[in-house]
Amino acid sequence: MRNNQFAIKPTEFADQLKELTDIKFLDAGNQTTTEPIKLWKSFLQKSFLTAQTNATFQQKAAALMATEKMDLAQYLNERQVVSLQAFYNVALQLLDFQPDLDFELADPLTALKKIQLKIVDHQNEDLSTDELKSAWYWLLATHNKDGQTFIDQLAANGYFVSFYHDSNVKKPLLFNGKTLPVFDPHQLIREVVYVESPQDTDHDGKLDLLKAEILRPKESGKDFTVPVLYTASPYNQGTNDETGDKLMHDVNVPLTHKEPDEKTYQDIAYHEPVDKNLPKPRQVKKTTTKTEETFAREQSYTLNDYFLARGFAVVYAAGIGTKDSDGVRTTGDPEETISTIAIIEWLAGIRRAFTNKTDNIAITADWSNKSIAMTGRSYLGTLATAAATTGVEGLKTVISEAAISSWYDYYRDNGLVIAPGGFPGEDADVLAEETFSRRLQAGDFHKIKPTWDKKLAEITQDQDRQTGNYNQFWDARNYRKNLKNIKADLLLVHGLNDWNVKPRNVAKLWQGVGNDQVNKKIILHQGQHIYINAFRSIDFTDIANLWLTHELLGVDNGAQELLPNVIVQDNVKAETWNSYDNWVDPAAPTEKFYFSENLLSQDQLANPNTLTFSDKLPENIFQNYCKNIDKWQNDLVTEKSKTMSNHRLIFKSERLENDLLLDGMPQVNLRVTSDCNFGLLSFQLIDYGEQKRLRVSPSILKAKGLAETFDWREDDLREFQQNSRSSEYKMITKGHINLQNRTNSYSVDELIAGRFYELSVELQPTFYRLLAGHQLGLIIYATDFGMTIRGNQDVKYSLDTQQSSLIVPMHQV
Amino acid sequence: MRNNQFAIKPTEFADQLKELTDIKFLDAGNQTTTEPIKLWKSFLQKSFLTAQTNATFQQKAAALMATEKMDLAQYLNERQVVSLQAFYNVALQLLDFQPDLDFELADPLTALKKIQLKIVDHQNEDLSTDELKSAWYWLLATHNKDGQTFIDQLAANGYFVSFYHDSNVKKPLLFNGKTLPVFDPHQLIREVVYVESPQDTDHDGKLDLLKAEILRPKESGKDFTVPVLYTASPYNQGTNDETGDKLMHDVNVPLTHKEPDEKTYQDIAYHEPVDKNLPKPRQVKKTTTKTEETFAREQSYTLNDYFLARGFAVVYAAGIGTKDSDGVRTTGDPEETISTIAIIEWLAGIRRAFTNKTDNIAITADWSNKSIAMTGRSYLGTLATAAATTGVEGLKTVISEAAISSWYDYYRDNGLVIAPGGFPGEDADVLAEETFSRRLQAGDFHKIKPTWDKKLAEITQDQDRQTGNYNQFWDARNYRKNLKNIKADLLLVHGLNDWNVKPRNVAKLWQGVGNDQVNKKIILHQGQHIYINAFRSIDFTDIANLWLTHELLGVDNGAQELLPNVIVQDNVKAETWNSYDNWVDPAAPTEKFYFSENLLSQDQLANPNTLTFSDKLPENIFQNYCKNIDKWQNDLVTEKSKTMSNHRLIFKSERLENDLLLDGMPQVNLRVTSDCNFGLLSFQLIDYGEQKRLRVSPSILKAKGLAETFDWREDDLREFQQNSRSSEYKMITKGHINLQNRTNSYSVDELIAGRFYELSVELQPTFYRLLAGHQLGLIIYATDFGMTIRGNQDVKYSLDTQQSSLIVPMHQV
Repeated sequence: MRNNQFAIKPTEFADQLKELTDIKFLDAGNQTTTEPIKLWKSFLQKSFLTAQTNATFQQKAAALMATEKMDLAQYLNERQVVSLQAFYNVALQLLDFQPDLDFELADPLTALKKIQLKIVDHQNEDLSTDELKSAWYWLLATHNKDGQTFIDQLAANGYFVSFYHDSNVKKPLLFNGKTLPVFDPHQLIREVVYVESPQDTDHDGKLDLLKAEILRPKESGKDFTVPVLYTASPYNQGTNDETGDKLMHDVNVPLTHKEPDEKTYQDIAYHEPVDKNLPKPRQVKKTTTKTEETFAREQSYTLNDYFLARGFAVVYAAGIGTKDSDGVRTTGDPEETISTIAIIEWLAGIRRAFTNKTDNIAITADWSNKSIAMTGRSYLGTLATAAATTGVEGLKTVISEAAISSWYDYYRDNGLVIAPGGFPGEDADVLAEETFSRRLQAGDFHKIKPTWDKKLAEITQDQDRQTGNYNQFWDARNYRKNLKNIKADLLLVHGLNDWNVKPRNVAKLWQGVGNDQVNKKIILHQGQHIYINAFRSIDFTDIANLWLTHELLGVDNGAQELLPNVIVQDNVKAETWNSYDNWVDPAAPTEKFYFSENLLSQDQLANPNTLTFSDKLPENIFQNYCKNIDKWQNDLVTEKSKTMSNHRLIFKSERLENDLLLDGMPQVNLRVTSDCNFGLLSFQLIDYGEQKRLRVSPSILKAKGLAETFDWREDDLREFQQNSRSSEYKMITKGHINLQNRTNSYSVDELIAGRFYELSVELQPTFYRLLAGHQLGLIIYATDFGMTIRGNQDVKYSLDTQQSSLIVPMHQV
Repeated sequence: MRNNQFAIKPTEFADQLKELTDIKFLDAGNQTTTEPIKLWKSFLQKSFLTAQTNATFQQKAAALMATEKMDLAQYLNERQVVSLQAFYNVALQLLDFQPDLDFELADPLTALKKIQLKIVDHQNEDLSTDELKSAWYWLLATHNKDGQTFIDQLAANGYFVSFYHDSNVKKPLLFNGKTLPVFDPHQLIREVVYVESPQDTDHDGKLDLLKAEILRPKESGKDFTVPVLYTASPYNQGTNDETGDKLMHDVNVPLTHKEPDEKTYQDIAYHEPVDKNLPKPRQVKKTTTKTEETFAREQSYTLNDYFLARGFAVVYAAGIGTKDSDGVRTTGDPEETISTIAIIEWLAGIRRAFTNKTDNIAITADWSNKSIAMTGRSYLGTLATAAATTGVEGLKTVISEAAISSWYDYYRDNGLVIAPGGFPGEDADVLAEETFSRRLQAGDFHKIKPTWDKKLAEITQDQDRQTGNYNQFWDARNYRKNLKNIKADLLLVHGLNDWNVKPRNVAKLWQGVGNDQVNKKIILHQGQHIYINAFRSIDFTDIANLWLTHELLGVDNGAQELLPNVIVQDNVKAETWNSYDNWVDPAAPTEKFYFSENLLSQDQLANPNTLTFSDKLPENIFQNYCKNIDKWQNDLVTEKSKTMSNHRLIFKSERLENDLLLDGMPQVNLRVTSDCNFGLLSFQLIDYGEQKRLRVSPSILKAKGLAETFDWREDDLREFQQNSRSSEYKMITKGHINLQNRTNSYSVDELIAGRFYELSVELQPTFYRLLAGHQLGLIIYATDFGMTIRGNQDVKYSLDTQQSSLIVPMHQV
């Protein structure tokens, strides 16, 4: 176990004293005492929240050890001084670490250093009262064994309940640069408004009204404005799982020859329509500050729940085409983006909303401080990224997790239909239907059905599964065209093993936004498509708190300087997170590998040499792989697999003498031919070597183990655990290409059967520590059972190994 | 999807009117109206909780369809009458069923019947106001698509919030025989007391004090006493996973010969010590009603959370040897039982508790109505069963789930060490250490360590892994010796696929308690060791509510007559629960099968025939099976498996012509020999036949999808789903025996190598529908990789098939 805290703010002693006073640890009763033991006892009394009398305090104190021989009750009664050892023995126990198991009572400092917990600056073995105050301050800022700061642990036990209605408490209340839970979560105001967006996507002659669900502190209003976390989630009003499933496309279809063309980008570029011929805005009848609709339970993100107790408002909106809103689903196009930012514009005071859909009674967000952040993962994070690329007023930052930055990179790749991992057959139309929650209300659906059927057919047509090419449909859904508009600071999070939203999405966003443009930070974890806010080993929630306290409350807490630009979870050591200056740096050094019979080598072959494999499998094996993709993947990578031996090429390096730190997008350069006039190739970069590896799905360490504050919502405490058994390999990254898209993804190249062509493919970006003794492997194959179409066609591919190579970027140390 | 509601109480119309008035659906504004449409509209207005104005009500109504063509808003505005069709179309939508997907607007009644939802008695197609009131009443009692009654759905949306502080509301408030959530869950009183138990298990010269955590409604007190749900959970103060793991026993050890003896039960019977030489009770200094200690978050059972909003107090206690309590862990012995019921005795007013551990200030539970139920699963349910066998005053009923009734049946079987499934190497000592949470507090542990080390060594010694025999240690832990003392009514729940706490535990309890002794009910589900209170397909929570409202509040709601004696989830059809009169009836008819070469046959072989198998596996296969028990199990059952072919015998029936309904404990009679002077045999009864079967672990349908009431704790909505792929077999039940325990489990029989012996083994009880076309299989083998010790010894077993048979009890239809 290691503790990785990035969001502890260095704080001057004078400020520590002020903050300790603000949170009532220092008060008239103890701040001037000259006796360390009395001061310590007063701190302990305030933090033993369950003990309501001296007798029960003594009982709790007697249950902790202060030294190897003496319990805390005895120590407090018999000693005058507070030794460093006693302080930290007790501190560790308060943080739920256990003597013998996690540390030795004889020597707590060794454990503190190992676990990476902060030790106060001190002169002697016994602490002065000033040192004790400071030590207590740092203890409050320190993570416990479950990855929660001690002050948040106290909050969960009710420390701040008396602050809720105490008019002497200045709100928001900060500690160590972060906001505290001093707002009663059971007094939240829950409101619904309907924001009028500047478009009419369902063509009913009226501007779309979009439902927004608001939760905000009871204290908020025009005299106490609050920052806003806005999560745009097309899922949160319900989904159509059954009708969505029915639309899933058959992926067992053949690849076909595409007619070559000479298309330029201009031919397929999407341009905003100039004249939208919009209906007139609604005529406002009157304006109010009182809503007419409420709700009981929103579909919430637990990170937002945490901030609800800390004085932030949270707004959820599902957007066009969802239950209770107007419009139709479009899966990522500019109309969706416009509907997403309409909510922000209302929160920023530059757009109208109404109390219901009929009476034209306008309502303002007079409680909003006009500083808005967006949060969420996957489609939710995608819409945050989309909103950022508009430069909309009021959006100060986005915390965008596992987000798409171009929908072509989600459903396509280099002229191929490429499924998000685990969802073969899904496409933009399926997702549109899945999220079209207007279907869930029969009365509403009844009216919109013909419009929706037409729109859905249009998406199916325009997404073009036939060619897999980048076209106008996909260009309209490429947010990266507008990176220059971004004004919001970026806090990006992505899994290096996310094969649903593949890492290229975040890498290209990271690369495309300059350091001079906005502040940007990125956290890369070792998981797949998951949230990391309930992890024990990284203080993500504290990072978000520090970040948002700065961005939305304008507090000068040093968030931007304190947080590393890049935090990467180590893929070798569990619960270890490292800081770096950059990721996917185009200037990174590279290593070049040539191919021989089955070797990745530093030396190029002297003579041309051709290796061939066939894509076609016996029917029973093909059917089995379709049903059991894990088995296919294992056979693909395992050299001795008989079934796959003639159906892919494996090249492996010698065993490495030193660790390699891969950082960026590996590139495969090939001279290759297909014996048909069509063809596709897939690539996997593999770490070969026996090792106990981290799981890519988090395990639940404690169900409901993380309270967002006292008597409020809870999250499951999670962590990536190490597998108990070692594995022989791990896939590092992968890539795909249609042999007719050698030039780019929108124009089609000729492909003559049997002729050799040169091509170059950029694999998905990575950050990967490859251990000495392991081997780097590259697998070249065609059908990818989890991602490509699967025609099981009789196609043979041949490689001129002399003219092929692999270029791997390395992290510049 | 089918709806199985067992807890809907038949209710006279006059009572329906009274209850509708109590819950404010009928009031001065609507109860005398003669216009059905007005009455219906008023009901709808009261239930559309998010709409706070007429405009928003209209908007919500317009989102529902009343007929194929007309939405609800239009219907309410244009019609005078309420048609049965419109009422149930809207009702189904209110219950979250979806037109087109779940039902047809043209014919809602067909869907209602199929889903098993109650339709009101009616005269005509248009409902009278009385019929409408009754229809609304039944709608409120009906489950929605997620398995929650409509009235609980309304509660989750805030319907009863205004009842919390309304002095006109009589509490507790009932509807359809069940209590309603009219108590504010954020105003709960949380208290800790220390109950003085009548023993000194840690021999410190003082009677053990036991910590109890109490949650109770703010309203409770001596003028408003409330019923109590008490959950005894040795886990709830924390566990010692690491030190517990270290104690796990090596199971890869050889089986050895046991010296024959002639022990009788009297030789090993446990007798309560007559003279306990107890310390004196504490001298009470004063008595109070105010506690001195509180807590923030108990480790709760969600079923208890549900009742907390419904006016029940909930008490958690972990018992002797747990954090903050005195004593030591004993894993199931009478001392543990005495500590368990001490809490009940305090709640019933016949035992003392103190406010802290030092000051001798006594406190009474003056808020308790002295009617107590126990709840919980596994060890928790076990302690409920244990408590029931004492006949303790105040304990009116236990809802005991997946509970042990004799610890020998948990860790041993027929003279063998048999692990709970999934935990090879666990034993009574491991569990004692695991739950000894006094270790978690170093100050306390420091003092108790020598006592605990001694106690633990004693348990390790006495549990006797060497022989596996039933002895005094296990006799002390056999609650079934005291079944005659049971006075509490029993609501038992067990999984028919629970191989952790095996079904014999509940079957012997069920059989051992007479119908004239107490009221008893049992629910058998198709899962393993899990809770069923958040399932969609059965109204377990409503059943518990009906049951406890009767048992603890003394309400004459017909619970005992209404609920079937036996509810069994069908193993073939998903989400289907059937009622029966009895289970494991000793008088059930049986079918007898004889063995031939590999056949289970109706006819006995004409001549003796011997079949032999060897237990010893090649070392690499043995090691692989140790690591991969699922693979072993699959190879064991699969006839064509090469690795297992000589290591077990398989007998299969012909394909069945008709379904069989197995009910009870199958019995295997054998004439058998071992070629060593020791030996063990294991048995599995198998359903051979390709079928898509239910999973034994529930899937989460909606995370946090079930609210216990508005803005309160939530549970994940779950269900056993059908596997998407068919499987070739399913294990029905299993059993084990040491060949030296042919007579019973406490006396050792001689075993001479090579000599044939007759023996008879009762397998674990089952209730299983075996489909026509399938085959019944019996596997006879020795080492069970998941449960027995695994010596991989060179032992050969031979069976005289002519003299062997299988007897299968069938459900009497």
